[in-house]
Amino acid sequence: MSTRWIYGFNALDAATERCGGEWDEVLGLLGGKGANLADMTRLGIPVPPGFTITTEACNAYLDGGHVLPDGLADEISVALKSVEAETNKTFGDPANPLLVSCRSGSKFSMPGMMDTVLNLGLNDDVTDGMAKIFDNRRFVLDLYRRLIQMFGVVVTGIPDEPFEVVLGAFRESRGVNSDSELFEDDLERIVRRFKEIYRDHAGRDFPSDPMDQLTLAVQAVFASWNGKRAAAYREAAEIPHNLGTAVNVQAMVFGNIGQTSATGVVVTRNATTGAPKMTGDFLINSQGEDVVSGVRQTSTIEVLRREMPELYAQLERHAEMLERHYRDMQDIEFTIERGKMWLLQTRNGKRTAQAAVRIAVELVSDGVITKHEALTRVTPRQVEFFLHPQFDTESKRRAKDEGRYLTTGLNVSPGGAVGIVALDADLAVRWAGEREEPVILVRPETKPDDVHGMLVSAGVLTSSGGRTSHAALVARQFGKPAVVGAQEVDLHLEARLITVGSTVINEGDWISVDGTTGEVFLGTIETSLPEIDDAWLTALLAWADEVRELDVWTNADNPDDAALAFKFGANGIGLCRTEHMFFDTARLPIVQRMIMASSDSERLTALDELLPLQRSDFVALFRAMEGRRVIIRLLDPPLHEFLPNEGDLIRKTTDLKIRLMKAGDLAEVNALVKELDETERLLNRVEALHESNPMLGLRGVRLAIVIPDLPKMQIKAIFEASLIMLEEGAEPKPGIMIPLTSDAAELVRLKAVVDRIATEVLGDRIDEVDYEYGTMIETPRAAITARDLAETAEFFSFGTNDLTQMTYGISRDDAERAYLLDYLKLGVLEHNPFDTLDREGVGVLIRSAVEAGRAARPGIQMGLCGEHGGDPASIAFCDEIGLDYVSCSPLRVPIARLAAAQAVLNRPESFISTADPHTDMTEGVAADTA
Amino acid sequence: MSTRWIYGFNALDAATERCGGEWDEVLGLLGGKGANLADMTRLGIPVPPGFTITTEACNAYLDGGHVLPDGLADEISVALKSVEAETNKTFGDPANPLLVSCRSGSKFSMPGMMDTVLNLGLNDDVTDGMAKIFDNRRFVLDLYRRLIQMFGVVVTGIPDEPFEVVLGAFRESRGVNSDSELFEDDLERIVRRFKEIYRDHAGRDFPSDPMDQLTLAVQAVFASWNGKRAAAYREAAEIPHNLGTAVNVQAMVFGNIGQTSATGVVVTRNATTGAPKMTGDFLINSQGEDVVSGVRQTSTIEVLRREMPELYAQLERHAEMLERHYRDMQDIEFTIERGKMWLLQTRNGKRTAQAAVRIAVELVSDGVITKHEALTRVTPRQVEFFLHPQFDTESKRRAKDEGRYLTTGLNVSPGGAVGIVALDADLAVRWAGEREEPVILVRPETKPDDVHGMLVSAGVLTSSGGRTSHAALVARQFGKPAVVGAQEVDLHLEARLITVGSTVINEGDWISVDGTTGEVFLGTIETSLPEIDDAWLTALLAWADEVRELDVWTNADNPDDAALAFKFGANGIGLCRTEHMFFDTARLPIVQRMIMASSDSERLTALDELLPLQRSDFVALFRAMEGRRVIIRLLDPPLHEFLPNEGDLIRKTTDLKIRLMKAGDLAEVNALVKELDETERLLNRVEALHESNPMLGLRGVRLAIVIPDLPKMQIKAIFEASLIMLEEGAEPKPGIMIPLTSDAAELVRLKAVVDRIATEVLGDRIDEVDYEYGTMIETPRAAITARDLAETAEFFSFGTNDLTQMTYGISRDDAERAYLLDYLKLGVLEHNPFDTLDREGVGVLIRSAVEAGRAARPGIQMGLCGEHGGDPASIAFCDEIGLDYVSCSPLRVPIARLAAAQAVLNRPESFISTADPHTDMTEGVAADTA
Repeated sequence: MSTRWIYGFNALDAATERCGGEWDEVLGLLGGKGANLADMTRLGIPVPPGFTITTEACNAYLDGGHVLPDGLADEISVALKSVEAETNKTFGDPANPLLVSCRSGSKFSMPGMMDTVLNLGLNDDVTDGMAKIFDNRRFVLDLYRRLIQMFGVVVTGIPDEPFEVVLGAFRESRGVNSDSELFEDDLERIVRRFKEIYRDHAGRDFPSDPMDQLTLAVQAVFASWNGKRAAAYREAAEIPHNLGTAVNVQAMVFGNIGQTSATGVVVTRNATTGAPKMTGDFLINSQGEDVVSGVRQTSTIEVLRREMPELYAQLERHAEMLERHYRDMQDIEFTIERGKMWLLQTRNGKRTAQAAVRIAVELVSDGVITKHEALTRVTPRQVEFFLHPQFDTESKRRAKDEGRYLTTGLNVSPGGAVGIVALDADLAVRWAGEREEPVILVRPETKPDDVHGMLVSAGVLTSSGGRTSHAALVARQFGKPAVVGAQEVDLHLEARLITVGSTVINEGDWISVDGTTGEVFLGTIETSLPEIDDAWLTALLAWADEVRELDVWTNADNPDDAALAFKFGANGIGLCRTEHMFFDTARLPIVQRMIMASSDSERLTALDELLPLQRSDFVALFRAMEGRRVIIRLLDPPLHEFLPNEGDLIRKTTDLKIRLMKAGDLAEVNALVKELDETERLLNRVEALHESNPMLGLRGVRLAIVIPDLPKMQIKAIFEASLIMLEEGAEPKPGIMIPLTSDAAELVRLKAVVDRIATEVLGDRIDEVDYEYGTMIETPRAAITARDLAETAEFFSFGTNDLTQMTYGISRDDAERAYLLDYLKLGVLEHNPFDTLDREGVGVLIRSAVEAGRAARPGIQMGLCGEHGGDPASIAFCDEIGLDYVSCSPLRVPIARLAAAQAVLNRPESFISTADPHTDMTEGVAADTA
Repeated sequence: MSTRWIYGFNALDAATERCGGEWDEVLGLLGGKGANLADMTRLGIPVPPGFTITTEACNAYLDGGHVLPDGLADEISVALKSVEAETNKTFGDPANPLLVSCRSGSKFSMPGMMDTVLNLGLNDDVTDGMAKIFDNRRFVLDLYRRLIQMFGVVVTGIPDEPFEVVLGAFRESRGVNSDSELFEDDLERIVRRFKEIYRDHAGRDFPSDPMDQLTLAVQAVFASWNGKRAAAYREAAEIPHNLGTAVNVQAMVFGNIGQTSATGVVVTRNATTGAPKMTGDFLINSQGEDVVSGVRQTSTIEVLRREMPELYAQLERHAEMLERHYRDMQDIEFTIERGKMWLLQTRNGKRTAQAAVRIAVELVSDGVITKHEALTRVTPRQVEFFLHPQFDTESKRRAKDEGRYLTTGLNVSPGGAVGIVALDADLAVRWAGEREEPVILVRPETKPDDVHGMLVSAGVLTSSGGRTSHAALVARQFGKPAVVGAQEVDLHLEARLITVGSTVINEGDWISVDGTTGEVFLGTIETSLPEIDDAWLTALLAWADEVRELDVWTNADNPDDAALAFKFGANGIGLCRTEHMFFDTARLPIVQRMIMASSDSERLTALDELLPLQRSDFVALFRAMEGRRVIIRLLDPPLHEFLPNEGDLIRKTTDLKIRLMKAGDLAEVNALVKELDETERLLNRVEALHESNPMLGLRGVRLAIVIPDLPKMQIKAIFEASLIMLEEGAEPKPGIMIPLTSDAAELVRLKAVVDRIATEVLGDRIDEVDYEYGTMIETPRAAITARDLAETAEFFSFGTNDLTQMTYGISRDDAERAYLLDYLKLGVLEHNPFDTLDREGVGVLIRSAVEAGRAARPGIQMGLCGEHGGDPASIAFCDEIGLDYVSCSPLRVPIARLAAAQAVLNRPESFISTADPHTDMTEGVAADTA
């Protein structure tokens, strides 16, 4: 039996049978668009009749040297007859003409790559006939001139330009802007001119035989599969080249034949709010492009309900059926041709984040999808939207129109922030106290001693720094919208102003910073705050909790963060960075005294002052977490971070020297000498602490070993806080975590200190405190020697920021500015490894450390506490390798809960199907039709 | 049968039989000293008779609650009888007394941990008798007082102090310095006082019964095994605690009974030069300690030959026999008691590096050892000695006596250097040209733009930096003696002086820097240059070449280095660092112009100027290596290294501003404004290039990708140089090596550039140039993704400096100063991982990369080119994992050749035995007897 090349839209069953019941095969045979049209037809939806020429026919044509395969011409004739029978029209018959469209449609959506020819079947005679039938020659001439141009360009390969030149000349002669304003007479002449252009370029007349038109159009669509543009697209999208395209031939319908015709678009639910009510727009006597272009004022679909209630009811019925069938909100195109409703296309509709959540949850209560499916219908990014005020799109558009757009940097912490520019942290704090206006802190980059300024600011903008720079990390941690590395922003600190290109912005001027997109605007942009206590989101996340296997913990350094994270569903603190506690304004001077100490006793005095403060920090955290695990990392950063910047100090000393030269009286001289002396002492210490590569320097466990009094104070504070909790009747669960470990001996050494202090502080109540001792895995060597480390460590926490830095050998503070963006642009790297965990490198280390750790200590607790802990792709990796938890900043906890559930649902071997048991094999997302 | 506790020195065969013929067991049973004495006795060497109480007896004593095991007391009596019979003397008989010593001796040498009691058997009666026999009461009283003190301290546990106080008082009363100058009368009274001290402390009289003395002494030696000091030593040396110690009881002989007695020490060859002639010293009428202490002027052994030719001949015979038996140069102690020669001890003798080489080679020609054994008799460090002038030990001792020792830093590049202090590189260059004196460059640390100063200096001293700091690397590279990280050295650059503690050293003052030990001296120290063209060394290294499987290549950036390395036996250049070529005084300005370029064309102009210079660099290298592989690494360091230091520029701008304030006339103002302008422009660029962690920044392949014109120039220069070589009829073999790779895409991208330029430059001669393309493996990710990299790379070169930095997360520039020394001191780390490759961490990465690389590309060439390439332990690792070559600095090539041979010989599964076939089971290194 010879191959069947064509399936009518009403022949889905036959195609399915041919494909052994596999929907994927059907998609392959008919293409997405063809399968979709056939699917709608089978549902009884009024789809203009037509047929699909299979991808096999395409491949046979291309393989056979661009000759139509045997039997195809005959099958086209037969299929066309069938369409004629259904439409009661005849292809090429001037008395009752059928016009058809010819569209490509491959298995995978290739938007913009598809070739289309409309209005096939028109020639001079048919034009005359149709003009009479519709009593509207202008309308038919318009179709005709479109056919000649489209056919000329797509099928015959004539450039578009000569056609457009003619149209332009006519528009000019009439003094109008759009082709729809041209007169019938103009069109008459345009058709003539177009035929001439065609002949001049093609060397033959425009084919007047409709069958010739159709055959040539089909061949052109076939050939377009191997066009340069399509091949390049497939290359990029990793679509195999041997799939071929199907060709869909479909009867044309027209929404622009008078007042009983119309075209419109509806969405089955409210795409903005998610409310379960059909919404949409339409236009009487119009074509699809009129609705989309916004040239004419559309009516809401409510008007259709009032004016054509029966058609509306029909549309509503179809919409409901399609939503149930495709099991998601549908975006439907329809055309009413002289009172007859036709549906041209349906696809899953785009929606806002809020709508996505509500729709997913309500589709479950409507019995359309399962809870598991609902969990896959919302992206983690959509959840993120709920957590930050966002700029109003319209307001941003207006700002751009007004020329207030300044630049775009790295969008490191989402949300929109509006405020007045403050160029240093102290000023930000002062203005936040004194003035009504919110503040945006603008810095070249931020350091830990800018944190107090960041905390009081509405948002942060820096001119340097990367995606995991200090500014980015702290901003995300505290949910402050932030844009960093905006290189076009030049700071002039002495002049107290910034410039962006030629725009000068003085301190105190208003700017708006969009942390979601990275854009920066002059002046204000309106924001709106999505509702976090959204009932639908709450429901969705509860379902996520049922599914996920990863626990979600949080990175929190203070009770407010801990409480917020706890409210968002965090089940423990995976990382309390004690350094942040040291930057408190009241404490920094003590910390600096500790660093500047010239004797052990001086250092101990400072540490003794810090002890009660640390203790109360920990008490507050323990209280907030209500008996959950609180993992406290001993001091990590290099000490110079607690001291002023070296360059600033150099500048200050020379400045003081200059002032000294000019000083008038003795008192002033004395004061200046004293200040100079202190500054130089500080500078000496900063220079002594200077390291070429502080990231690889004296920090983490190395600090703890070289300055043993420092960790002792911290450990003591932890156990004293635990004792206070015991006395309050609570059950403290501290975890003591060693940072930057690279050798098991480091852990062994500090374990002895921890146990000794625990015994000293807790005495006979030691058994009541369930404390654990563990380590960060953040140097490659820690990962490699994980088996040894697990002999001592009771838990591992993968610090993927540092691990990524060291595995790649890239500094997160510099890389994005220096070359990482170039790498991404050039395609040397696909993803920024600081955003998404690098599976091939860093991931290999983590995976092997997990195995080695479990081998040495079965049941060892393992989590990830780097920035990746809030990244969905990285969370999927954590799920895959069987970590116990991820720990992320409080505002990312809800995101992580959803992502962890999705990770389970997306497991290749998942037994938890996201599909309903009753779904049949026609299930599939409606293909995107360009 | 009950256990036998005692073996006479003449009962080695019985002990051996008891041990089933295993020498190791014999050592365990009799201890090293006992076995050695028995071994000498069996050889017919005249050893004073005696016996060994076994380690088993010791363990039985210790386990049995400090009671002598059954039968031991009887066995001691029997053994003593045998000694009495041999010596014709009787223990405790005043008429003919036998005195014995009692010494511990365990399986492993524990120097200084061993308890010894001499002169056992003396009491008042025996003293009187012996005084008569020897006709020398003073001599016997001296033995007696020594016995009481030694017995009191060792056996009874009396502190040494009261005895010493008494001796001191007598010396003072006589106004003499040494006990040997005390009178007989004094000793009479001292013996009385010592007995009183003994009674006062012990609560009983000094035991006058010789058998009591012996029994107590034996018990004391047994108990000393568990003494605190010995246990701690075993802990440190990882010697098991359950071995126990043997006790050797031996007849005393005396070299100080008149003019026919003597004591001396001989070495079977010249320990300084290695010449095959017995050398040594002796003293008539003296004790061993007199020879060693240097109080009396010794005679050379030649005097013995003249004056006691028969005894000399006897000694020579014994020495020869012992050397043959122990198959190495022996260091022998002898005593002549009234004309009778006794040998007391023999052991392998210490020797200088030169002697070690000559002796090893000559022992082979003497038929004593095999070539393979000879290769294991010389340490790589001894070879290193040949390559650098060394300070004279005596001269150093004198300098210390004169208070000229200043401080000790890190000994990073061996050899002694003497010169005048220059505090900057430019001055060093000027002085090297203008002045006669050699220069020592003293800097806080060095940067690449100090290199020209280092090259002209005799040595380098820095106050900061670690073992692999820039200064250390460059110094080793160029064989310049260097001490770095000498923290006590304070530089005062403005004052042009340095201080070390209170010592002030002005620029131009002489200092001496010992790169072998790290010591720094004020003034000059004498040096001597060992002979590198040493025939014996040449022979030894030729044998090494026959054995080794690793090829030895060199790291060389200029033709002189290449030629030197080639002469030393390097078989290729494994690493040519192109950055060193950029620091040439003539080129640096062009390089800076390239970096400061404000447009592409400006940059290209600078690169065009560099091209012919680079080309001639490569031509020179190709010529020097005569057709061997020359692997050229594209530019690696961050660009800021080619610009001045940021702090210096800040200081300069402020300095210029101050001068501007004071400036008088307009011309001066204009000049200053111009200079300020240029300085600020430079500062801006330096600040723009500033990175927080340059080690992890924009360098290596990243530079090549971000500034593609730069590698293009270098690649072009390589191929143009190759073409010139072709024209000269040579066969150039360039390797193009990509630094700091972390992703395969980087390699793919640059491979295309290399191949394109090769085609462009070489045209149809492309097949004549055997060029290879490869990569450094120096980021952990490169090691992890080695399989992917090997798809493109034709060779791997492990850059273990960077790999160590990133795997541990430690900066080699900072770590030693900041905490690594603390770590080593505290025992947190056993070795400095920058000295000796870390097998457990870095080694795991390398090993897996080797396997993955071979899997992807069988036969892929792999080498190591970090500093570890010259470290013997690391070379052994390279041999173990099957690398093809190691590449090290030229001066380390001979060391690497030997180390590579030793690696083969030391392989656990090695079939190449280092022992001669004819050696019997008594073979073993003579135990060290303290």
